Amino acid sequence: MEAWDALVAHNRETAALAGASAVVQWDQQTYMPSRASASRGEQIAALSKLVHARNTDPRVADWLAELSTSSDLTPVQVGGVRNMTRSLERARRVSPQLVGALARAQSEGFGAWVAAKEAKNFEAFAPKLQTLVALTREKAAAIDGDRSPYDVLLDEFDPGATTVSLRSMFDRLSAGLRELLEATRGVEPLQAHTEAYDTDRQLTFFRQVAGCLGYDMEAGRVDLAAHPFTISMGAGDTRITVRCAEHDLLSGLGGTIHETGHALYEQGLPWDLAGTGVETAASMGLHESQSRLWENFIGRSLPFFRWLAPRIEAHFGQSVDPEALYRGANRIVPGLTRVEADEVTYNLHVIVRFELEAALMEGRLSVAELPVAWNDRYRELLGVEVPDDGVGVLQDVHWPSGMFGYFPSYTIGNLYAASLGCALEESLPSLWADVAGGRFTGIREWLRAGLHRHGHVRDAPDLMHDLVGERDHVADLLTHLWGRHGVLHGVTR
Amino acid sequence: MEAWDALVAHNRETAALAGASAVVQWDQQTYMPSRASASRGEQIAALSKLVHARNTDPRVADWLAELSTSSDLTPVQVGGVRNMTRSLERARRVSPQLVGALARAQSEGFGAWVAAKEAKNFEAFAPKLQTLVALTREKAAAIDGDRSPYDVLLDEFDPGATTVSLRSMFDRLSAGLRELLEATRGVEPLQAHTEAYDTDRQLTFFRQVAGCLGYDMEAGRVDLAAHPFTISMGAGDTRITVRCAEHDLLSGLGGTIHETGHALYEQGLPWDLAGTGVETAASMGLHESQSRLWENFIGRSLPFFRWLAPRIEAHFGQSVDPEALYRGANRIVPGLTRVEADEVTYNLHVIVRFELEAALMEGRLSVAELPVAWNDRYRELLGVEVPDDGVGVLQDVHWPSGMFGYFPSYTIGNLYAASLGCALEESLPSLWADVAGGRFTGIREWLRAGLHRHGHVRDAPDLMHDLVGERDHVADLLTHLWGRHGVLHGVTR
Repeated sequence: MEAWDALVAHNRETAALAGASAVVQWDQQTYMPSRASASRGEQIAALSKLVHARNTDPRVADWLAELSTSSDLTPVQVGGVRNMTRSLERARRVSPQLVGALARAQSEGFGAWVAAKEAKNFEAFAPKLQTLVALTREKAAAIDGDRSPYDVLLDEFDPGATTVSLRSMFDRLSAGLRELLEATRGVEPLQAHTEAYDTDRQLTFFRQVAGCLGYDMEAGRVDLAAHPFTISMGAGDTRITVRCAEHDLLSGLGGTIHETGHALYEQGLPWDLAGTGVETAASMGLHESQSRLWENFIGRSLPFFRWLAPRIEAHFGQSVDPEALYRGANRIVPGLTRVEADEVTYNLHVIVRFELEAALMEGRLSVAELPVAWNDRYRELLGVEVPDDGVGVLQDVHWPSGMFGYFPSYTIGNLYAASLGCALEESLPSLWADVAGGRFTGIREWLRAGLHRHGHVRDAPDLMHDLVGERDHVADLLTHLWGRHGVLHGVTR
Repeated sequence: MEAWDALVAHNRETAALAGASAVVQWDQQTYMPSRASASRGEQIAALSKLVHARNTDPRVADWLAELSTSSDLTPVQVGGVRNMTRSLERARRVSPQLVGALARAQSEGFGAWVAAKEAKNFEAFAPKLQTLVALTREKAAAIDGDRSPYDVLLDEFDPGATTVSLRSMFDRLSAGLRELLEATRGVEPLQAHTEAYDTDRQLTFFRQVAGCLGYDMEAGRVDLAAHPFTISMGAGDTRITVRCAEHDLLSGLGGTIHETGHALYEQGLPWDLAGTGVETAASMGLHESQSRLWENFIGRSLPFFRWLAPRIEAHFGQSVDPEALYRGANRIVPGLTRVEADEVTYNLHVIVRFELEAALMEGRLSVAELPVAWNDRYRELLGVEVPDDGVGVLQDVHWPSGMFGYFPSYTIGNLYAASLGCALEESLPSLWADVAGGRFTGIREWLRAGLHRHGHVRDAPDLMHDLVGERDHVADLLTHLWGRHGVLHGVTR
């Protein structure tokens, strides 16, 4: 297995450079002084170029070709060769010219988007978006001209997901969510929790919470940043960032638990298999399922707030009612903005984007028609009027960054999380007593054994099937939402 | 000038990778979680390998060869070609085998040194040091077999310095320092300043002080670390670290001002000339002169403490006498440890090391004889008995790291700083009134215009000569020390 050993050694060095790039990018978002932005851009560009060159090194193709003819590969080797071949094929089929054109279009698109969003003026961004759409379709055709372009794009984030299967799930989910929304529409809204909490103390509190959930502080850190994120820099180094708002403890808390969920997945990956191609997360959707399971299923539950309330009192010296926290964390407020959405309406935001970007990629919708289509769907699905494009079609960074096909991963994550929640309740009968008692180890270890430690040996749908069996994810999510929000709002199906 | 443009572009990308490596190393010393040390080591090794490969790329030699025949180079190009040719020649003449052997010996030497220092047992480290000495001599011979090996090593840190010229200066300095020491020996020692100050507040105070001295906080940061250091990661990003001890405000303060001096040099370098080979500091000695000028000449002066005392009172809410600070900062305490030494005895520590490492390199001293020679010289020069090797010959990391020839830079820095101080007093008649009034901009701008912005267009001795003229650095330093410490201790020459 000389080819295998050479490939793993090559990948380990590439991973070291990618890890250095992660350090540099984390620093950019946390501690970098403002005048360093230009030199930092050069550093990230230089490292990206190197990592890309190493990943598409002709020797990699040779090693993979040799291994693909071998009949006695271990499961790790089978998975690694599959994953690496996929990535390499995707990379090789896109010409350097197209890669360059896309990079330029993304860079120009991002700049134009920032200005257009500020000015609430979609027209200023439309020509750039048009270019991004055209180049992305060209890329999809280059990778696999025989398949739907949107299917090809989905593969990058959630291998195995298809437009048809997603549409079928999303349509059922959408109908179910609107039914719940309709039922709660006339009901008195739950009260928000807007007590003031010292923001410095919020940061130390969030660190404690992450640690209690099982995040290994000796293999990570929690810092402040403008946008919460999780990033791994290598074995023993998975960091999260949070933000704190004086009158919105629950928002910072939710963000912390969300990132902790991502980080627990990363910390549980098989880092000892570095370089084999299976040491990573199995998909973006599965990653999101980990953050959502912790953030929503656990972190918005009443037992969780029963555990948390006395800790808030001890840390901030302010008494708080767990029921008030529970209600405050589970308000349903159909709104304009995805990242501020509640657990019930969140997936409707995603479904709007899925429908529109699929139509753009399949040529059924033009860029010029996009804002009206967006506003129409927000009216139909969420019942809200979009006052301007800045808070409408221009709100997300994904399209300006050329990320088409990513949005579904958010809802795939919520769907997986719902089924994981059901399976967890069955596997761990003491679950809610454990949560109320602050004993979170059982949950982490169940996820670690069932998912994390497998890395990407198998694809996400297979890993999920192995762990939860044959389940209807849509039904699981709707059951969870009716169970929690129906009861809270006094409505039934 | 195609060769020049290609060379600069190549160097800029190399600098971007070296800058990324600096970020990664800074993070290692400040915020990295403990379990990341192995993966971090792989990242640093991968980047070092890349930077080395790029610096010794055969095209670099071709470009330099082509440029060296050109007759119409600008001063920047002349300086850049000279600096790059020097580095390349040094790198090319040392075989990859010897580079590898040295790297291994340094790594093993460092490990053995940590254990030997802990156990106060030189014998356990001696075989590793023997190997390091032998390989370093081999390296010096490979670079230039016609010159004294120690001269060859000095070139790496302070181009132009020679063993003979240093010995002549250091002998005079040593005699002058011992005369001052002798004169103050019977005098009542000055009182230490051991008030307690909150360490969290010390950090915020040190940040303020660095900012007042002219350090650009938008192009840098001040963080805590076990060992104070300054590191540049690229244009707009020069960071310093400090440490705080509750009962030793002056130590943390001195460290802060020292690193601020280094950082002001780095921030003043011609970053717009990135990639030309002249955008760096001109020598280690000149770098040290910047830290020492600020730390000692300015930062241990009475006018400085007159400015500082009310700020200490305002920040910590504790009243303090500027004269007490001045005396506390200028105590003479001949001791065992270089990094804790006062302004008067510091250079004697360096001179011991210079004499011994020059003798080792020239084959006049064996490794086995080193501890006795060390202890003898400490008795003769500093009048102290060394109780064990841990606080004696094993105290510094330089030799275990294979850094022979670096120590003189510390004293070259103090010598340059003394002449810079004299020239500064002549050029800026309001100097001490400015310091007492907290107006430090004039000093920074004088250094910036006279030294910093020239980078490494010319070598340090030439830059110094241009700025201060023909001066006797040893006489300048002794005059400064007698002027301050003679008066404080009531003694005269």
